[in-house]
Amino acid sequence: MAVQRVESFVAGTWLQPGAEARPIASAVTGEMIAEAGGAALDAAAMLDFAKSRGGPALRAMTFHQRAAMLKALALFLSERKQALYDISFTTGATQSDHLFDIDGGIGTLFVYASKGRRDLPDDHVFLDGGLERFGREGRFLGQHVCTPLQGVAVHINAFNFPVWGMLEKLAPSLLAGVPAIVKPATTTCYVTELAVRMMLDSGLLPEGALQFVAGGIGDLLDHLGAQDVVGFTGSAVTARTLRGHGGLLDNAVRFMAEQDSLNASILGPDVGPGTAEFDLFVKEVVREMTVKAGQKCTAIRRILAPAETVSAVIDAVSARLSKTVIGDPRDENTRMGSLVSEEQKRDVLEKAALIGAEAERVYGTDELPMGGKGGFVAPMLFHCADPDGAARVHDTEAFGPVSTVMGYRDLDHAVALANRGGGSLVTSLVTRDGDVARTVVLGAGAWHGRIYVNNADSMTEATGHGAPMPHMVHGGPGRAGGGEELGGVRGVLHYMQRTAVQGSPDILTAVGGRWVPGAAEVEGPAHPFTRKYGELPIGETIHTKAREITMEDIEHFAHFTGDTFYAHMDEAAAKRNPFFPGRVAHGYLLLSFAAGLFVEPNEGPVLANTGLDNLRFMKPVQAGDRIAVRLTVKAKTPRSQDYGEVRWHVTLTDQDGETVAEYELLTMNAF
Amino acid sequence: MAVQRVESFVAGTWLQPGAEARPIASAVTGEMIAEAGGAALDAAAMLDFAKSRGGPALRAMTFHQRAAMLKALALFLSERKQALYDISFTTGATQSDHLFDIDGGIGTLFVYASKGRRDLPDDHVFLDGGLERFGREGRFLGQHVCTPLQGVAVHINAFNFPVWGMLEKLAPSLLAGVPAIVKPATTTCYVTELAVRMMLDSGLLPEGALQFVAGGIGDLLDHLGAQDVVGFTGSAVTARTLRGHGGLLDNAVRFMAEQDSLNASILGPDVGPGTAEFDLFVKEVVREMTVKAGQKCTAIRRILAPAETVSAVIDAVSARLSKTVIGDPRDENTRMGSLVSEEQKRDVLEKAALIGAEAERVYGTDELPMGGKGGFVAPMLFHCADPDGAARVHDTEAFGPVSTVMGYRDLDHAVALANRGGGSLVTSLVTRDGDVARTVVLGAGAWHGRIYVNNADSMTEATGHGAPMPHMVHGGPGRAGGGEELGGVRGVLHYMQRTAVQGSPDILTAVGGRWVPGAAEVEGPAHPFTRKYGELPIGETIHTKAREITMEDIEHFAHFTGDTFYAHMDEAAAKRNPFFPGRVAHGYLLLSFAAGLFVEPNEGPVLANTGLDNLRFMKPVQAGDRIAVRLTVKAKTPRSQDYGEVRWHVTLTDQDGETVAEYELLTMNAF
Repeated sequence: MAVQRVESFVAGTWLQPGAEARPIASAVTGEMIAEAGGAALDAAAMLDFAKSRGGPALRAMTFHQRAAMLKALALFLSERKQALYDISFTTGATQSDHLFDIDGGIGTLFVYASKGRRDLPDDHVFLDGGLERFGREGRFLGQHVCTPLQGVAVHINAFNFPVWGMLEKLAPSLLAGVPAIVKPATTTCYVTELAVRMMLDSGLLPEGALQFVAGGIGDLLDHLGAQDVVGFTGSAVTARTLRGHGGLLDNAVRFMAEQDSLNASILGPDVGPGTAEFDLFVKEVVREMTVKAGQKCTAIRRILAPAETVSAVIDAVSARLSKTVIGDPRDENTRMGSLVSEEQKRDVLEKAALIGAEAERVYGTDELPMGGKGGFVAPMLFHCADPDGAARVHDTEAFGPVSTVMGYRDLDHAVALANRGGGSLVTSLVTRDGDVARTVVLGAGAWHGRIYVNNADSMTEATGHGAPMPHMVHGGPGRAGGGEELGGVRGVLHYMQRTAVQGSPDILTAVGGRWVPGAAEVEGPAHPFTRKYGELPIGETIHTKAREITMEDIEHFAHFTGDTFYAHMDEAAAKRNPFFPGRVAHGYLLLSFAAGLFVEPNEGPVLANTGLDNLRFMKPVQAGDRIAVRLTVKAKTPRSQDYGEVRWHVTLTDQDGETVAEYELLTMNAF
Repeated sequence: MAVQRVESFVAGTWLQPGAEARPIASAVTGEMIAEAGGAALDAAAMLDFAKSRGGPALRAMTFHQRAAMLKALALFLSERKQALYDISFTTGATQSDHLFDIDGGIGTLFVYASKGRRDLPDDHVFLDGGLERFGREGRFLGQHVCTPLQGVAVHINAFNFPVWGMLEKLAPSLLAGVPAIVKPATTTCYVTELAVRMMLDSGLLPEGALQFVAGGIGDLLDHLGAQDVVGFTGSAVTARTLRGHGGLLDNAVRFMAEQDSLNASILGPDVGPGTAEFDLFVKEVVREMTVKAGQKCTAIRRILAPAETVSAVIDAVSARLSKTVIGDPRDENTRMGSLVSEEQKRDVLEKAALIGAEAERVYGTDELPMGGKGGFVAPMLFHCADPDGAARVHDTEAFGPVSTVMGYRDLDHAVALANRGGGSLVTSLVTRDGDVARTVVLGAGAWHGRIYVNNADSMTEATGHGAPMPHMVHGGPGRAGGGEELGGVRGVLHYMQRTAVQGSPDILTAVGGRWVPGAAEVEGPAHPFTRKYGELPIGETIHTKAREITMEDIEHFAHFTGDTFYAHMDEAAAKRNPFFPGRVAHGYLLLSFAAGLFVEPNEGPVLANTGLDNLRFMKPVQAGDRIAVRLTVKAKTPRSQDYGEVRWHVTLTDQDGETVAEYELLTMNAF
């Protein structure tokens, strides 16, 4: 088999590896299959390519356009995933491991495409939170906005997920509008290279949006500044080196690390053998030990069980591990493949020996599977009888199919042991008891980026202890790196700057593209319900005539709807109420009359009233009051090829000009 | 005058300064007035005191209880602020400077007290964002929650705001539930010490919630870990030292820096001399140069004006500066006091000389005011004719009454110059033109933590270029430190860990204290409207009987309310609509009938319907459909001594059990 020369894509050109290229062996056979590194990188040219081409092109797109690009990329890769599967077996991964890496990576692109369309505007500015008011009259307000950083995202990834690892960072970065330089771990970079080639060949990305380094990154970090971001996934040791890099520190460069950590899984004190939850727990532990041969940052390294259940857990986990078929990842009977390299195998065996000094090995042997070939190791289960006195079991990560069972006395003890990991990506808990879950979250939340609770109610839809979902944040404090990724829009904001903008309503309307109360009202040529989506400017407003609310209206509405609440019907009872001067009109009567005042009845571009937000009743309305409505186009968001959502700001005022109710109305309007 | 020995409050005891105490001089007279430092600190004891006493006590309180504590502290300090004014003159600050420092600091406590009550729950867990769904059936969901860090916040503050600097960090930290160790700059620590004594003497804080170090912090940073936070305000040089501290890096300790930066103010291209905006701009520039004698991290260091307006700006600013009375800060005619020390005076003069090498001094002399006594310097205005070629004017901060005028060719040039500061806390812009504001935000947002836009519309309520409001974030990228503080709840979250919690609806309900759709429904002994606030558990639910919607209802509702929209009235037109199968019931009719179904009419603890959120119509309802309502207690929040808000989850279903509408209803209920 020819040795593949893994290339780097630098400033628009694919570069061959150089003289100092490092050889890469098959994890399965140990044969040399590729080489990478030593390419003639020019850091300044890479940054310039990203900043002068990729950044401006991405920033010229709206969030929705970038989301559409991610979706197209996901579809493009999806059609080509067989090629990615084919090349990935050599990393030691099985077909079911590929589902995590390749399908999981593509799935993350899809989720970000969808989040981009739903949770972000079809605009260049993201509005973070609501308006802040400083004075009585609302002439000067505050609005936080986020805009894309004007630099580059450097993504340094781990060897275990050559595709997902890239895409879970790339999706939020591109959605934010920031170009990326991707540098995977060298050991599996040939898989990443193929995925990068596909994406570049797709023609879906603007020039400069994506560059790729196989091998070391040279002096790239020395060139970064205030607009750049470094995202890292990998070992605590490498993270520490990067975190202390002088150039990053000098320039306060954003740095996010996600480190493998000593994740725990807690069997709740309410769960005993013979229950659905017990079986669930055992299955999950074994799955986390064997998927990717335990090479997951989120894998369960510490198994915490009630002291009285420890031996049952050991027996059940051991029994299940004994059925795990280890072998060539291409063989479809294989349940667990190999570690990524012989080097990793040596490391895992060394770490397991450290753990073995404090804990007894209760499953596993010294014998290596497959005759010691490649990266193969067999699962090992330890039992630590004194988890309070032990140290290694809480701080030593054997990055393979290795885990340690520990008994706890009570729930506080379980929480204390979980926290002994010094910060982790995830802790799971199997319980049926909500109070147990709340106690664990209150006691352990500060130490864990994710707490995954499962039981028989949720097991059919549960996503797995070890699977970071794009919707939820991934990262954790301390030993887990102190960083955070993913989490929907949260992950996008890591590549944007939040800026507190202060100004008048007109200024904030212009900046944010959303009408702010107090800003100028735009007069249209006709009723806004007769105008198509595209014809309506932000701020277009109508004022309706006023309608008097009579006591007959209130009586009639009460009996028609059945809403005979005392505040509407009983003068004396209403007067005793702290909010009302006497009988008042129903809030729903006001909403209904308001619609009667502002609606244009004839068939037109308004297709439906789809919802209503933030309704507040601000002043009681009594018989004799006269209500008028102001209706203003607040924001617009396309929702399909044919129509978009119009968000209207609605204000109801009485005969004194005072606001009695305010809300936002949603309609779907034809293009 | 006796020399004050400034004490430190360490692990419950006030400690005298030690042998290596540093002398502190009056900024006004240069006389020695105090000494601080060298106290026998025991870092381990301080951390233990905070973690074993302060943390648990604060975490046992809810957000609302902590907010009430902040309000009480604010009132307590407010009654004693004369003593704080009295001691502060010696720092060189005038009475109007005290309003920024002392009243501004107390105001920040008040705002956080109010934000805590309004934006945070009366609970221990903050729910960040909405639910995330992973499967079709909603059996396994995600919710981000934030819980307090279990460590300590170390606040290292600058000399210029001895009171505000402490309180703007302390308020969010205590509201989060995290104890603090406050270390002010030594030069003005005698003011901070007095404020700390007041707070400790008030008895309002739990033991261990607040400790205080006058002078150096010794080896405190070496003892910090994953649950601790260091917040720093001060110079870029000190920030760099702290950021690179080995112990902080080893343990991924959260570090936030807010550094003085080269803030700019841009006079919009639309603004010329003789306008209200021009005068506003000049006033603001002079105010920022002279308040606190220019010793503000946010002060305007670079004045950007259209090239053709530069000389008018120089003339107007110079004319106004010439009226600034410099003198003893206790004298009420004084408009500008002194720098904090002779050392600062020397530093400012050195930096001004560096700037002078690139720019011409157009206002100011070599002569020092007050005969060279104390920290007095006079304002200096420079003009840089070649701001593109210059470097010092963009990176050298003279932390005093010093600023440089530069001309720009067009708006893009102005943006580029503003960004030359390498990251700043704030850039201001005076313009009437919304497009100018949007261009500046899109072009410069990524480089600036705040963009302050002002004009004649907003000037009466505008809060000032240099004043960080507690509602808005304070901080900026790069040269400004890369950190962020304040910003309402955002500032609180810096002291909490965000954790992605996944689980079944019942589990998430128990964890978050908010009912999650799909969770168990609690049956109550009577209609929930007959039960007081305190008697209603989360999850209490009623199901109403069904009501059939008739065509007569739709017709009648349309004519009664005036809402004769075609989708309700015209079968053919409704059918042409992409959403409807034919004539449909009004959404407001459904809401009104729903209320008729669930309301209990008799006088009782429900006082008012105050609002409605997140209403979505999910399926059209036609004549002949039968609608029933499920009403569930979703969340509860106390709002006064007498009543609280109940948030109800409301679901309308049809005869097929399908959801036709969903919303959250708000009522105010008596205790």
